[in-house]
Amino acid sequence: MVSRTSDSLSLFESAVRVKSAAKTIALATSAQKDEALWSMAELIRGNAHEILLENEKDVSSALGSGQTNTSIDRLVLNEARIQSMADQIELVARLSDPVGEVVSGQVLPNGLVVRKERVPLGVVGIIYENRPNVTSDSAALCIKSGNAAFLRGSSSAIRTNTAIAILISEALEKARLPGDAVSLVRDTSRKSAVEFMQLEGYIDCLIPRGGPSLIETVCNNARIPYIIDGDGNCHIYVDESADLDKSLAIIANSKVQRPGVCNAVETLLIHRNIADELLARLEKVVPTVEIRGDKTVCAIIGRAKEVSDLDFATEFLDLILAVKVVSDLDEALEHISKYGTGHSEAILTNSYENARRFTKEVDAAAVLVNASTRFVDGNQLGLGAEIGISTQKLHARGPMGLTSLTCERYVIQGQGQVRL
Amino acid sequence: MVSRTSDSLSLFESAVRVKSAAKTIALATSAQKDEALWSMAELIRGNAHEILLENEKDVSSALGSGQTNTSIDRLVLNEARIQSMADQIELVARLSDPVGEVVSGQVLPNGLVVRKERVPLGVVGIIYENRPNVTSDSAALCIKSGNAAFLRGSSSAIRTNTAIAILISEALEKARLPGDAVSLVRDTSRKSAVEFMQLEGYIDCLIPRGGPSLIETVCNNARIPYIIDGDGNCHIYVDESADLDKSLAIIANSKVQRPGVCNAVETLLIHRNIADELLARLEKVVPTVEIRGDKTVCAIIGRAKEVSDLDFATEFLDLILAVKVVSDLDEALEHISKYGTGHSEAILTNSYENARRFTKEVDAAAVLVNASTRFVDGNQLGLGAEIGISTQKLHARGPMGLTSLTCERYVIQGQGQVRL
Repeated sequence: MVSRTSDSLSLFESAVRVKSAAKTIALATSAQKDEALWSMAELIRGNAHEILLENEKDVSSALGSGQTNTSIDRLVLNEARIQSMADQIELVARLSDPVGEVVSGQVLPNGLVVRKERVPLGVVGIIYENRPNVTSDSAALCIKSGNAAFLRGSSSAIRTNTAIAILISEALEKARLPGDAVSLVRDTSRKSAVEFMQLEGYIDCLIPRGGPSLIETVCNNARIPYIIDGDGNCHIYVDESADLDKSLAIIANSKVQRPGVCNAVETLLIHRNIADELLARLEKVVPTVEIRGDKTVCAIIGRAKEVSDLDFATEFLDLILAVKVVSDLDEALEHISKYGTGHSEAILTNSYENARRFTKEVDAAAVLVNASTRFVDGNQLGLGAEIGISTQKLHARGPMGLTSLTCERYVIQGQGQVRL
Repeated sequence: MVSRTSDSLSLFESAVRVKSAAKTIALATSAQKDEALWSMAELIRGNAHEILLENEKDVSSALGSGQTNTSIDRLVLNEARIQSMADQIELVARLSDPVGEVVSGQVLPNGLVVRKERVPLGVVGIIYENRPNVTSDSAALCIKSGNAAFLRGSSSAIRTNTAIAILISEALEKARLPGDAVSLVRDTSRKSAVEFMQLEGYIDCLIPRGGPSLIETVCNNARIPYIIDGDGNCHIYVDESADLDKSLAIIANSKVQRPGVCNAVETLLIHRNIADELLARLEKVVPTVEIRGDKTVCAIIGRAKEVSDLDFATEFLDLILAVKVVSDLDEALEHISKYGTGHSEAILTNSYENARRFTKEVDAAAVLVNASTRFVDGNQLGLGAEIGISTQKLHARGPMGLTSLTCERYVIQGQGQVRL
């Protein structure tokens, strides 16, 4: 397999090409973009064997380099994971195209016709860690929304990512679109990562997808606009009036269903009047979860360890749950305000007033009442697919679907109007 | 007049207070916020004399410090300007409150009720130059949208700004809202400006309002999210099919009506087939405008000077117009793509196809057909009032009204749902 993606090109030369391709993809019809997406899925399915061969090389290098098991698991592909990558591309192809949507419009008293329309951002830069599916997922979402995707994956996944990127460019060209509209950076040195996030004028929006150290590097070095897909130190507050059966099911689901993701719960806050009964039952409902609690918790749950302030500030991403007994809703709100990262926060309650206060006063991308935090996800919330979950307030907040990859533009049509 | 605004407080102490006040103002009712706004306007009208006394002191210091006339003109207040500040606050009071607006909502198949609601950003930081009306305008827009305003004006305007800020805090307290919800930074040193834009965790959005050097300082130093109200190097392209009478009126309006603002036209591109006639008439239509043109232009307009590449890249903000004759729409699009700053770009044409191509292909916050660039303004476009005009793509683009001072939040209501 011969690489045709920016192999011998400097980062800057690639950036120039991607920017030029972005102009073409921005004007492509939905039919043409979808044709490229269907081809992408077909080529990925048809070349699964070749992708797996490249992936094996990446994995054996990674095994020799002392990466953690979790990290290597994220890198590994198999037949099922490749089929799921192709499925995901087809899912995006079936979504409606956000480009050109008229967001608002009116005729002004002077006869000017004013519309706000959705247009692509231009070049979307994605900087990410091991998971090779980010290559195809991001490419599909960017293409569908009329953007070029400038991809900078990890060095451990470079062979796999290259194999996938070549197929994507081939699919674009089959649909008579520029192959450069999806470009993978081949130089995966640390230096090039920093240069990538400083490509002012060449990347319209940077979306880092990775852990805290990547996010910090972006915050410290980026000279281009970015959207932070940040930590999820998520809380569930069980109010005095909560239904305990439902609460236990929601807590277990939020913690155990997939502990390694940002919308899993990390800290449980329990109203003191129901703490005894809830804690006694909790222990049995989440037997595999390590519980770190305050004195009341430790007195009831024998196996619980003592919780620290650091625990309350930690996104465990693991089968660990911090637990605190609080005296009322105010104390819960205060705790969330102090330790929360503005991702997803839930209250379990049967009190209308407490549900109202919680949803109004908690400052987070998503607030939930009587539902699992695991629902805060683009697919679950009906966005079709997501490019990430924003924990910032500007531009996009919460799960980001196709519209988060667009911006708006005023189109003003007159017949000679001048300002008085 | 005794200052009650953060006089003896450190910047960090002020930031803590503003953040705390933001939580209260976010939950205030529209009625309460409007009450504060009406009081503000009344207090400003009632204390015009005191504000003018402070302003005289600022102006006499500025006169001694060698500031330009334009700069001093921006600083000067008079009775009419103060009345207009109060009018503007009342205008904002009459707008509808964006907070709580349900942007979208649906019921998912599993019964979860999902809504996206508008919520305030929190603390909005405004860093600005001489104009004291920015103090009252920004405060009004922030309060109406449920945000606290953290204001950092120039040292030349500090006495005037302080007088206004004290009245605003008084008005807030009259409406039983925290006076700290609008706080003016009293330390106007350069060092404090940089510290201001690095108040991570205390300012949710920074909006710099000023010239290129302020914008550059923000881009180089800010560690908080910001919205750039950038340069407007705006173009008008006069197509072959344009109505020349209307075109001349639009060009004159775009250039002369208020040359010192960002939505004034700076470069005129003319299709070669109509250049002779248009240029011959243009000379008389804008007699006060210095014309800098290419060879064709200079051959027709005797007083024209030769234009340089630097002119094409310059936002004159003055009675100067760069003029270039182009051979077709493509050349015009290429020129705009090279020199435009993504603010406002206009085509004057009677060709359906060229209007369609221009509005589709030009990458700017606003594209206009047969209308003056001067319409790209929040008041003109029906936003009621604007906090600035964004030239960036993320969050807000073009004139920013109250909704640009909000973000969205997911509210998810269930009855015990867990993820399968």
